[in-house]
Amino acid sequence: MSTADPKAIARLVGETMFAVDVASKDTMGMELLACEPGRALMRMTVKALHLNGHQICHGGFIFTLADSTFAFACNSYNKNAVAAGCSIEFLKPGKLGDVLTCEGLEQTLSGRHGIYDMKVTNQNGEVIAMFRGKSAQIAGAVVTE
Amino acid sequence: MSTADPKAIARLVGETMFAVDVASKDTMGMELLACEPGRALMRMTVKALHLNGHQICHGGFIFTLADSTFAFACNSYNKNAVAAGCSIEFLKPGKLGDVLTCEGLEQTLSGRHGIYDMKVTNQNGEVIAMFRGKSAQIAGAVVTE
Amino acid sequence: MSTADPKAIARLVGETMFAVDVASKDTMGMELLACEPGRALMRMTVKALHLNGHQICHGGFIFTLADSTFAFACNSYNKNAVAAGCSIEFLKPGKLGDVLTCEGLEQTLSGRHGIYDMKVTNQNGEVIAMFRGKSAQIAGAVVTE
Amino acid sequence: MSTADPKAIARLVGETMFAVDVASKDTMGMELLACEPGRALMRMTVKALHLNGHQICHGGFIFTLADSTFAFACNSYNKNAVAAGCSIEFLKPGKLGDVLTCEGLEQTLSGRHGIYDMKVTNQNGEVIAMFRGKSAQIAGAVVTE
Repeated sequence: MSTADPKAIARLVGETMFAVDVASKDTMGMELLACEPGRALMRMTVKALHLNGHQICHGGFIFTLADSTFAFACNSYNKNAVAAGCSIEFLKPGKLGDVLTCEGLEQTLSGRHGIYDMKVTNQNGEVIAMFRGKSAQIAGAVVTE
Repeated sequence: MSTADPKAIARLVGETMFAVDVASKDTMGMELLACEPGRALMRMTVKALHLNGHQICHGGFIFTLADSTFAFACNSYNKNAVAAGCSIEFLKPGKLGDVLTCEGLEQTLSGRHGIYDMKVTNQNGEVIAMFRGKSAQIAGAVVTE
Repeated sequence: MSTADPKAIARLVGETMFAVDVASKDTMGMELLACEPGRALMRMTVKALHLNGHQICHGGFIFTLADSTFAFACNSYNKNAVAAGCSIEFLKPGKLGDVLTCEGLEQTLSGRHGIYDMKVTNQNGEVIAMFRGKSAQIAGAVVTE
Repeated sequence: MSTADPKAIARLVGETMFAVDVASKDTMGMELLACEPGRALMRMTVKALHLNGHQICHGGFIFTLADSTFAFACNSYNKNAVAAGCSIEFLKPGKLGDVLTCEGLEQTLSGRHGIYDMKVTNQNGEVIAMFRGKSAQIAGAVVTE
């Protein structure tokens, strides 16, 4: 594959990572809608398996949705990257049947370090949570170019 | 039940919350080992369902373990409490078969606001992650005293 | 003053708060460049008084610049607001003579709770730090309308 | 100096760093009370110069006190260390005349990465803020052993 096509590389990185991500795909039921250079988009419908004792989506699973989206966005250049810190703010609960979409966008990338913002919204466009992640690129690539 | 027995109340709060917490109990496979005034202890073995594309425990699930432990610790006085913010630091990966234990301890409780520290360790006593949560008590109780 | 002019109100709120903010104005030497609905802009030149033992701007003062900008942005509607949590990521050091500009922008405001992002850049447009603040509106106003 | 005396080394590291830390010592008026292996203790009295528009200590300066304490604690082994992330929770305001003490304690140190907790209290023993820092050791030393 030509390295001249960053979009195709990002898409291949996303498909490759997602195919073996049991936690996100099978356990949580996420879908990967897009993986582009510096951006990713994922979706997860809140099902009974996600509910905590208050009958709302466990905050940990909203974190997990955002953390997965972060991983796809910061690995999208096909340079292995790891999370070096993150924070989350919970704004509204996720309810049974809600369709949660998370968009992750690169805010800055300077040398090996980047900042990515993930925003989780529901089907009404309400913001459920905002997650910020700091990434560090390490040696290696996700796919062979 | 006598309100003069905070330990018995905390235990009942824990059992009551955990019984309906599908996310923690059924989906993640956590166990609630202790719920005491200002303290909780949970355990989760890393299984195939927890693994991400790197074949390590998804960081979101380590967050979820700590977040659940936080919920039990800050509700242990039988006054409804919610998370008002949290941060996590990941120190080591969790591997397939690892037995992760999370202890949550109250650091300060002043009026309605508390700070709780959760420490996740593996079967070798290595620290996997440290989570800090800020809680706010709201109206209502978990169980009727 | 007419409440129909949110921009004029925000400017007056900014001027009123800044006039008595000894810490930001006198001790740190900040300037308030703009205070608009949901937005604020501040500037601080790194002087000898800001340097730590590594001869770079103390990270605490970069935090302080962002925290002040946050306060102006989230009080700009003339409804008293307080910080309910914040996080910061340091990306590059501030050096003696650097002119640091911080822009704070509202990301979401739902009911009484808002999220604001502050970005600190230097005179070359390089990002020095990113700060995220969660605000909660409380009773009262900054100025009488 | 013998490397067999970690306490003496830590004290020397603290004195050496503090002597040139204009920001902490001169601008903020902090005192370094102790610098021991994995621990530091600092003090700062809230003066007029620290007050914001609400006539309370600027949150940024409480952060600065904790951040300085963190720097002394994580450099105390005479291996250069830098902050790789931090979070703070503000619990009570600092008032004019309050004597704020900050103790920083290492929670875990594994390889080059450590977690340190800083607790800021006032003269009545009330907790003002809690700060958690993640450190990374880099090449070099503070003093020549």
